[in-house]
Amino acid sequence: MNNFVYNIPTDIRFGREQIKCLPEELGKLGKKVLLVYGGGSIKRSGLYDKIKELLKDFEMFELSGIEPNPKLSSVEKGSEICKKEGIEVILAVGGGSVIDASKHIAASACYEGKPWDLVLDRSLVKKALPIAVVLTICATGSEMNSGAVISNEKTHEKLEINTPLLYPKLSICDPTYLYTLPAKQTAAGSVDILSHVMEQYFQPNDEAYITDVLSEAVMKTVIKYAKKAMDEPENYEARSNLMWASTIGLNHLLTVGKGGAWSVHPIEHVVSAYYDITHGVGLAIITPAWMTYVLSEHTAPRFARMAKEVFGVNESDDMSAARLAIEKVKEFNGSLGLPAHLSDVGITDEKFDEMASEAVRTSGLSTRAYVKLDKEDVKKIFLLCR
Amino acid sequence: MNNFVYNIPTDIRFGREQIKCLPEELGKLGKKVLLVYGGGSIKRSGLYDKIKELLKDFEMFELSGIEPNPKLSSVEKGSEICKKEGIEVILAVGGGSVIDASKHIAASACYEGKPWDLVLDRSLVKKALPIAVVLTICATGSEMNSGAVISNEKTHEKLEINTPLLYPKLSICDPTYLYTLPAKQTAAGSVDILSHVMEQYFQPNDEAYITDVLSEAVMKTVIKYAKKAMDEPENYEARSNLMWASTIGLNHLLTVGKGGAWSVHPIEHVVSAYYDITHGVGLAIITPAWMTYVLSEHTAPRFARMAKEVFGVNESDDMSAARLAIEKVKEFNGSLGLPAHLSDVGITDEKFDEMASEAVRTSGLSTRAYVKLDKEDVKKIFLLCR
Repeated sequence: MNNFVYNIPTDIRFGREQIKCLPEELGKLGKKVLLVYGGGSIKRSGLYDKIKELLKDFEMFELSGIEPNPKLSSVEKGSEICKKEGIEVILAVGGGSVIDASKHIAASACYEGKPWDLVLDRSLVKKALPIAVVLTICATGSEMNSGAVISNEKTHEKLEINTPLLYPKLSICDPTYLYTLPAKQTAAGSVDILSHVMEQYFQPNDEAYITDVLSEAVMKTVIKYAKKAMDEPENYEARSNLMWASTIGLNHLLTVGKGGAWSVHPIEHVVSAYYDITHGVGLAIITPAWMTYVLSEHTAPRFARMAKEVFGVNESDDMSAARLAIEKVKEFNGSLGLPAHLSDVGITDEKFDEMASEAVRTSGLSTRAYVKLDKEDVKKIFLLCR
Repeated sequence: MNNFVYNIPTDIRFGREQIKCLPEELGKLGKKVLLVYGGGSIKRSGLYDKIKELLKDFEMFELSGIEPNPKLSSVEKGSEICKKEGIEVILAVGGGSVIDASKHIAASACYEGKPWDLVLDRSLVKKALPIAVVLTICATGSEMNSGAVISNEKTHEKLEINTPLLYPKLSICDPTYLYTLPAKQTAAGSVDILSHVMEQYFQPNDEAYITDVLSEAVMKTVIKYAKKAMDEPENYEARSNLMWASTIGLNHLLTVGKGGAWSVHPIEHVVSAYYDITHGVGLAIITPAWMTYVLSEHTAPRFARMAKEVFGVNESDDMSAARLAIEKVKEFNGSLGLPAHLSDVGITDEKFDEMASEAVRTSGLSTRAYVKLDKEDVKKIFLLCR
């Protein structure tokens, strides 16, 4: 087991009506608030009004219109408001995109230069405004981690900024806020959670057994409840288990003692940076292709372990079990109604070369991944996804 | 899933040589240090000298001789030193007993009245000195939780004090410090970890599926590595997995969304309060008796689930599988060389009546346990343990 530090300062308030704590807890962080959110869904659901009412004694500013795959331009806007108005705390109400944009704003607000500088060199982040979250989409785990992924629409780069200063101080996770989530978003979010766990599970270190069995537990949870949450949007058991799975799935717990670079996410990131598709949809398409491409005598035992422990496959031959794992992942994605090919989302092979180069250039794919991949490998994976 | 708060401020430094961070990290908490430890094992292992060398620029005071089942009198001594010397931070070097005593000292040092008051009424704890830990025995999880169990040798009470103020600020967990742990302590510690998880697993709420599968993961870890760590004391993989299992096993993660009172621990606590036996040994004796006593149509499905998911038992009938779970627990304890009867540790039925009363009086056994137990029930469980 590799050495690790585990130190997560986020205060999670999980469950029905936890929003009631907002005035008291947010008040500890600041009174001048930048409320960051996406489109109109929090207005339609009544959450926006509820928050405005709860925070009527706070000085409120707003940045709305944060898009999926949040853009640098939104961060620049938010950062300007913070500097101009002397914002003390950022309240992100939404899912991963809103939280990630808020994190980047929180850091940019305390930095003299351009926000993108901080993505290119995270050591420039010396300070950040405190961040509070009200979670309305479960997928990215951003509510309890220190990472944020931002897309630079000019350069087609989709990169991560990550420093302990960006842990949210407070995250309110009420599963009933997921009741109004469209089935498509529930599906994409569930695939994202599963992919996070798989990225951490498929790593070279086999000695961190406890981390692996905890990962299997979270994968089983996602598989058990994803379809149920789509079919029964107001099933509290399904929503709450998925919501906590998303948090646990990427709050460092499932990576301790392991290590290495991720594989499918960096490949997907270039796709959504170039084509702005939903991240979870991209993951659903690329994951089985990646598994197929990297399957070997070396990787088969771990794929087989996933087949057995997560999908309950009873097959003693590792290679056969590993192939079944790939089939099971495809089946799972299919059961959620997700596409299986890039052509299904209108992507042709036109930019495969360019995207493959970018994926390798901007990640640890060729240096630290579970199976190291160069540009040609990534291109072949794209070809498997056509 | 029940509502919950998850907010753990402990900074865990896990792995080889993490002790190197001690001067820097402890320095953030204070420069006047009360070093609390047990007997001579940390002197024999060289850890004592290493810490003294690392902290040569700190003002050091010492409280040694903390006993297993730590006593109120030790807490009183420590609290006096803190008040007299103006101690700023407590450094606990040891296992659960040392950490628990240190927590109670940390709270008592900031309280005008008698330390035992704080155990009887935790609302009196308004402040506590910061606590840092160097872990040398893995069992209680005290390195990442806010509880401390203290024995009052005059009243035969063994009670818990628990408030968020008592979370250690820093815990250094180096699995190599477990290399010198005698096999008997490894066995008792492993049973303690397993019991913590079982206490949380056997609770009324079935909707917190994710918490249950995470619990199964930790139980599997303990069962996989306990014997190995005894047989191969310097097996890093075994020691590190057990060490992290003990932390995860009782850092709140495995109880979120569930709830209710524990069963076996309060029964054992009276036994070790009266007879001062090793806590893990008491748990090994009582756990199968408790399972046998509470087995019913109502509890069988969950016992059966444990049999299947943790022990890999393949048996479709719940009642038969549940009985196999009890056998498997006995087998596990036996494989670690632990006794199965109270008579094996010199305890007769003389005080069963009195102990049963105490167990019910000082716990939630009769009001909130998985299966509610009154004094007669507890006495019958003691009789099963003879």
